[in-house]
Amino acid sequence: MADSAADMMAKVRAKRPLVHHITNYVTVNDCANVCICAGGSPVMTDEALDIPEMVALASAVVLNIGTLSERTLESMAVAGREANRNGVPVVLDPVGVGATSYRTAAARKLMETVEVSVIKGNGGEIGVLAGLGGKVRGVDSVSGSDDAGAAVSSLAERTGAVVAATGETDYVSDGKTLAILRNGSPMLEKVSGTGCMVSSVTGCYVGACGVSVPSVSAAVSVFNIASEKAVEGGKAFGPASFRTKLLDSLYGLSGEDVGESLKMETRRV
Amino acid sequence: MADSAADMMAKVRAKRPLVHHITNYVTVNDCANVCICAGGSPVMTDEALDIPEMVALASAVVLNIGTLSERTLESMAVAGREANRNGVPVVLDPVGVGATSYRTAAARKLMETVEVSVIKGNGGEIGVLAGLGGKVRGVDSVSGSDDAGAAVSSLAERTGAVVAATGETDYVSDGKTLAILRNGSPMLEKVSGTGCMVSSVTGCYVGACGVSVPSVSAAVSVFNIASEKAVEGGKAFGPASFRTKLLDSLYGLSGEDVGESLKMETRRV
Amino acid sequence: MADSAADMMAKVRAKRPLVHHITNYVTVNDCANVCICAGGSPVMTDEALDIPEMVALASAVVLNIGTLSERTLESMAVAGREANRNGVPVVLDPVGVGATSYRTAAARKLMETVEVSVIKGNGGEIGVLAGLGGKVRGVDSVSGSDDAGAAVSSLAERTGAVVAATGETDYVSDGKTLAILRNGSPMLEKVSGTGCMVSSVTGCYVGACGVSVPSVSAAVSVFNIASEKAVEGGKAFGPASFRTKLLDSLYGLSGEDVGESLKMETRRV
Repeated sequence: MADSAADMMAKVRAKRPLVHHITNYVTVNDCANVCICAGGSPVMTDEALDIPEMVALASAVVLNIGTLSERTLESMAVAGREANRNGVPVVLDPVGVGATSYRTAAARKLMETVEVSVIKGNGGEIGVLAGLGGKVRGVDSVSGSDDAGAAVSSLAERTGAVVAATGETDYVSDGKTLAILRNGSPMLEKVSGTGCMVSSVTGCYVGACGVSVPSVSAAVSVFNIASEKAVEGGKAFGPASFRTKLLDSLYGLSGEDVGESLKMETRRV
Repeated sequence: MADSAADMMAKVRAKRPLVHHITNYVTVNDCANVCICAGGSPVMTDEALDIPEMVALASAVVLNIGTLSERTLESMAVAGREANRNGVPVVLDPVGVGATSYRTAAARKLMETVEVSVIKGNGGEIGVLAGLGGKVRGVDSVSGSDDAGAAVSSLAERTGAVVAATGETDYVSDGKTLAILRNGSPMLEKVSGTGCMVSSVTGCYVGACGVSVPSVSAAVSVFNIASEKAVEGGKAFGPASFRTKLLDSLYGLSGEDVGESLKMETRRV
Repeated sequence: MADSAADMMAKVRAKRPLVHHITNYVTVNDCANVCICAGGSPVMTDEALDIPEMVALASAVVLNIGTLSERTLESMAVAGREANRNGVPVVLDPVGVGATSYRTAAARKLMETVEVSVIKGNGGEIGVLAGLGGKVRGVDSVSGSDDAGAAVSSLAERTGAVVAATGETDYVSDGKTLAILRNGSPMLEKVSGTGCMVSSVTGCYVGACGVSVPSVSAAVSVFNIASEKAVEGGKAFGPASFRTKLLDSLYGLSGEDVGESLKMETRRV
């Protein structure tokens, strides 16, 4: 029988995977801390000369184009190719794809030059990449595909990656199976970078448990269950205290919390 | 009758203006989160190739030279000119002007090549730019002009921008009217980047309500009233918990809170 | 009689030293805020053209290679040489040395071209630089030298710097005296960048009190005592709330707190 989300959470905490990030400078500190709270060990370096050895040590690489530049885009390509050579899974977060043609082209270029293991975006970004609708304003999803399940499945089938589209409901697919996840809190939209944080947690889970619909789904669900715990009993009264409690909750989550709270269904595509 | 500060707060929350930032990497996360808590939607990108399309989507552009480099200075010029072409207001935060000649020259160059809508600095920075005294150490104001009202008015008249000088008392002017604002908390000086946060909030207000002494004053006052709520009843006992409560308070502020707490007077220059 | 740690804390708060950082973009905001909470005034600039004047104003310079690049490495060399010319102490935090050869070479190059006043690393990093064992994974210490005291003393003797190795027990030496420090909390490992924060606090202390084993030890101990206060009575239940309380505690620490809690012994090497 496959590992449950709670089993995978235990595995991440036991293995403490090293997750190499090339990510944006807006939310990078939250990515580092969410990685620790999820059970991983974060490292960030974007200097091309430093990347190959660091990637070789890593259990996963997270590429997030939130504040990409010509320099870091090249660094991401170096990190991705090096990860591919070493059999290290690559998580791509195509932040703001669809908002500008530069971002769309950058994400497409990365997907051509690097074998990406997981693509994790919001509904709008995944819709744009799937070519099935989707609208992005700045770095926020305005609307996803009419059929978000079809968008993740189709993009997964075309790219060979596990694809996750986050939103009120989250969808994860490898082109064959589709997981539909219903945990989370509306407060997640009130904090900058919660999408980036999901990508970092995903790096921890695929680094420790391998790349699969269950491992990516576990990452998304564990993070979302932490967000539910953070607002339980009205504990968080605003976005900043919510962020603090979100990280604390993720760190303190028990296997029972996950087992009891998980709202996931899986379908054949 | 003109909109009150509370009316403008409601307008910002209803319109959710997209505020494009090119800002420093020290306080950028707080800028993103304060923008959300004020009611806006932040986006940060400093790659020249990505800027034109992003600026065209934006309701305001915030240029903050806190950690400027030759590369980002050029990006700021691109963003500013593109904003001018699109009729998007530009807020300039001349961080550290007067501390080094590089910063002073950079701010002056931006003011020559870009039509700046709002200049928001601390008393020392505005004094330096106005040429009426003002001393800056690192990025902190040591002393402003002897007459801060004269400094903002004079700089506003010369540049055509609305100018705001923040401090224990805040001054905002367009060269004809001078607003004197007396909200705030001494704790604001104990957190890095509260000045940068005011610039981000100002971006939200001018993006949603237009550029005027009332809209810039509303931004400064709403932020400062949130700082008063954050320490009410001794709730915050240190700088880090104060920051959390500041963001929470800004998010939760009601129109009544603003109406009851506002300490503003307006004079003809 | 030499100043006590509590005396030095009072001196830092009275002098408010300007601490110039060239540091990583992951934990830079925490470095700025910890610097304020310790009593200093932070400034961050990494543009070579801006550095000489800013360094001339500073009481200390902190060079942290956490996310170094070819560009910022050159900026660090400029800042370090300028600091040397101005008699401003330089604190080097060799983040991740030993994890990749690029980082090891970068730290060695800085130590050759700049007269470094303090080297502050984790046990693994100091072990690597001392050539006495030490293993680093990403940016975390896996293991230090078998004899951490010998590692700091030997590196201090060879370089002329005061050397600090942090961990469960902290060691500080100038090659003649060795201080062994036993304050701290296991929660410090659960927050990204607590090592970077110690370097920033060290910048404040050497900037205000001069470079010596007692001043560096005071910086490390005051920070660690703040971490003990942060968890007193079970106040912090997770990493994010711990970070908030750590900064608040550092800000609020009294001389009595330091005097009563300090666990330090000093030996001749």
